[in-house]
Amino acid sequence: MDFVNKLSPAQFLQHQLREVINLLEKQQLEKSLLERTPGEHHELLETVLRKQQESRLQDKLAELHPADIAFILESLPMDQRMLVWNAIEASHHGQVLVEVSDAVRHTLISSMESADLASVAENLDADEIADLADDLPKNAMLKILRSLNNLERKHVNDVLAYEDDQVGAFMDFGTITIRADLTLNAISDYIRNLGKLPKHTDKLFVVDHDNKVQGVLPLSRLLTHAPALTAENAMVTDFVQFEVDQEIAEASHAFERYDLISAPVVDREGRLQGRLCIDSVLDYILEENDEERLIQAGVTEEEDLFSSVWKSVQNRWPWLLINVTTAFISTRIIGFFEDAILQLVALASLMPIIAATGGNTGNQTSILIIRSLALGQITSINVGRLIRKELTLALLNGIFIGLVVGSVAFFLYRDWPLAGVMALAMLLNLLVAVVAGLAIPLLRHKFDKDPAAGASVMLTSITDAMGFFIFLGLASLFLL
Amino acid sequence: MDFVNKLSPAQFLQHQLREVINLLEKQQLEKSLLERTPGEHHELLETVLRKQQESRLQDKLAELHPADIAFILESLPMDQRMLVWNAIEASHHGQVLVEVSDAVRHTLISSMESADLASVAENLDADEIADLADDLPKNAMLKILRSLNNLERKHVNDVLAYEDDQVGAFMDFGTITIRADLTLNAISDYIRNLGKLPKHTDKLFVVDHDNKVQGVLPLSRLLTHAPALTAENAMVTDFVQFEVDQEIAEASHAFERYDLISAPVVDREGRLQGRLCIDSVLDYILEENDEERLIQAGVTEEEDLFSSVWKSVQNRWPWLLINVTTAFISTRIIGFFEDAILQLVALASLMPIIAATGGNTGNQTSILIIRSLALGQITSINVGRLIRKELTLALLNGIFIGLVVGSVAFFLYRDWPLAGVMALAMLLNLLVAVVAGLAIPLLRHKFDKDPAAGASVMLTSITDAMGFFIFLGLASLFLL
Repeated sequence: MDFVNKLSPAQFLQHQLREVINLLEKQQLEKSLLERTPGEHHELLETVLRKQQESRLQDKLAELHPADIAFILESLPMDQRMLVWNAIEASHHGQVLVEVSDAVRHTLISSMESADLASVAENLDADEIADLADDLPKNAMLKILRSLNNLERKHVNDVLAYEDDQVGAFMDFGTITIRADLTLNAISDYIRNLGKLPKHTDKLFVVDHDNKVQGVLPLSRLLTHAPALTAENAMVTDFVQFEVDQEIAEASHAFERYDLISAPVVDREGRLQGRLCIDSVLDYILEENDEERLIQAGVTEEEDLFSSVWKSVQNRWPWLLINVTTAFISTRIIGFFEDAILQLVALASLMPIIAATGGNTGNQTSILIIRSLALGQITSINVGRLIRKELTLALLNGIFIGLVVGSVAFFLYRDWPLAGVMALAMLLNLLVAVVAGLAIPLLRHKFDKDPAAGASVMLTSITDAMGFFIFLGLASLFLL
Repeated sequence: MDFVNKLSPAQFLQHQLREVINLLEKQQLEKSLLERTPGEHHELLETVLRKQQESRLQDKLAELHPADIAFILESLPMDQRMLVWNAIEASHHGQVLVEVSDAVRHTLISSMESADLASVAENLDADEIADLADDLPKNAMLKILRSLNNLERKHVNDVLAYEDDQVGAFMDFGTITIRADLTLNAISDYIRNLGKLPKHTDKLFVVDHDNKVQGVLPLSRLLTHAPALTAENAMVTDFVQFEVDQEIAEASHAFERYDLISAPVVDREGRLQGRLCIDSVLDYILEENDEERLIQAGVTEEEDLFSSVWKSVQNRWPWLLINVTTAFISTRIIGFFEDAILQLVALASLMPIIAATGGNTGNQTSILIIRSLALGQITSINVGRLIRKELTLALLNGIFIGLVVGSVAFFLYRDWPLAGVMALAMLLNLLVAVVAGLAIPLLRHKFDKDPAAGASVMLTSITDAMGFFIFLGLASLFLL
């Protein structure tokens, strides 16, 4: 990385992206020039030129961090992406695949031949290989497993044994363990002999003969405490450890709360299995947020900016169809009241306000509940108070917005009864909205489903349908 | 922290919360029992009892991590929250205030007397004091500043000098600097003499006489390289540093991309000012995601689960009113076509489908764009291709969904021209939706505004209004 020229990291990335694109465009230009130059040495010329172009691109990419190459690949349309991918040294393919987004990884892997795929794991750690396992073809994965030594293979299988949302699936094996009776001096010598510490090593794990973690020895203590002390006397015994089958969401909260860099991961019997590090936690948090946002908007899977139109269509249709279906329910409710609309056509104009405002209020409530559920702040103890508060709020909002809307309706149509029906319908639909906004995430949570998934679509369906029903129903009762 | 009893971090927290609530309820019970026991020693009894109760709660809280106390405070309704708050030792108030959410912090600070506020900073670092500065009354803040020594005061003012979204506002001052000509041996001695390393120290900063950072020395190198080497020979020169006025969002991407724990923060001339650590970056990321989610749902500010109903009302009205206003625009468009509806009442039933589906499609597009903008993946180079792709997608979706909706409309009303108008209106509104879904975030980004804020509300207004207009307009042209 060359930050010497005073580029900020983002400018640096944009700069690299531009340089790569320039190379690609130059390549394109030279190629088309060559095609227009006939002559006897044409083929030779072409070979020389291609060699030259390839080495320019290769040199450029060789100096970049895998994460930066991943960014460039994600920012390029498919044809250019493949040119860049093929210019990356094969031994770096694995590292780039680990960094790249899921959708782009699919496009890259599907372009690779099985021989290349099998060698992808060469420079990867066990946990990184496990990360790729889902996306690799079975054959390639088997070949890779066969190429590993026993310990590595065990580690890969360990990680693969856990569910996507369990701590075990996120652990790595860069643990350094020591015995409690070693002096800090001896530990320093031991580390010096190792020659290298795994990334993110901020503490050593003190284990007993059963491989149970008795304490952790932060590097800072190793550096500041008296060298003659034993690990037992210098270690921290009041530390956080995670079990392999705990939820990663929970672990990520603990990382944030206690400002952790790494923590031991143990099995049910308390035996050390690996460690969880802040980089995995951060990746999880970012991915999780991303996914949730997409799910709420009705995009089923991560979508690559330049994935084919056909793939994007498939990705977005499911929710659109659900949306169209629920919209038809509203249609049928309105259809039921067509006579009322014929008698008082103003109803048709006014009904969307009731529906839209209900949706908005319900969303406010449900987002707050989803958020508090995610933070673990809603318990059986306080949920009653919370419901009372939201209902009171809905009542106040309903009265206020009802009055506003009623007044405007009167201003438009000079019809007191109509204005009254409008205000009452608004109040009732806001109550419906808040009940739905509370009930959907709380019930989904109770039944161990993701409280956020589809919340917005379900909620809007309910507030739309009920909004039309309440408004047109009240109008039929009182106005006709 | 007592994780020995095999509780996971989340179970541990819930357990602590329950214990605190039990104490509070016991307190309440004893108090009401006492009130029903008249007698001459009543006052004395009451005093003794209160003392006892207070010490029980104090003991319980004294053993908890400030972040855990923060969680408990956030989970309690106002009256119980104040009881707990007052049972926390005053010297820990500052640490808890730093950990607690913004909304809860406001309630706590507003309950404190100015003398207590001034002593809140006692156990805090400069960057933590700066974090609280916004929420503290001016008087208290002035008192705190006066109580600091010169260096601390400079540090607090340094942090306060930067905007909320700049790296400088997130830096701390736990930097350990060394000269390039020191041997690793000498550095080890120096650290041992310090006796303690600041939290999150994973590297030392090698600076020259101008305080410019020449390289960084990871602790792992200090521990593994030959003690006789000088810092100059052992240090990493290819490192990431940030400038004080860079955007924190950009820095957080770099932390993720390069798996950083800490990094030097320098001024424009490259002189070391402080450091940025992963815990601040993580806090920023979590807060940012939270805020964005709330903003999209139309909740203006962070809202405390138990903030007063009145505060919540104020918080949610602004967006609700905007929503009602834009809904009235749709009303006026429908009102304009009331004659058409009277002639063909089916229009009133069918129009909400066009509007709702448009909103959904537009949201899908805008979320993907907002996300890619946040990741820095949209550049002037690829934006053209992207727009073409989304438009093609909208065309395909429009044709497909249009056919579905047209067919159902025919099934319901047995009216071919009506079905045709329905299908065409759907297609056109989906195109409108995608254009709006692209334009709103891209334009807001171009003018340096947050592309996400209010995107959903604006978008839905446009797709609603245009949906009604297109559908009713086409119907007037072709059906009447």
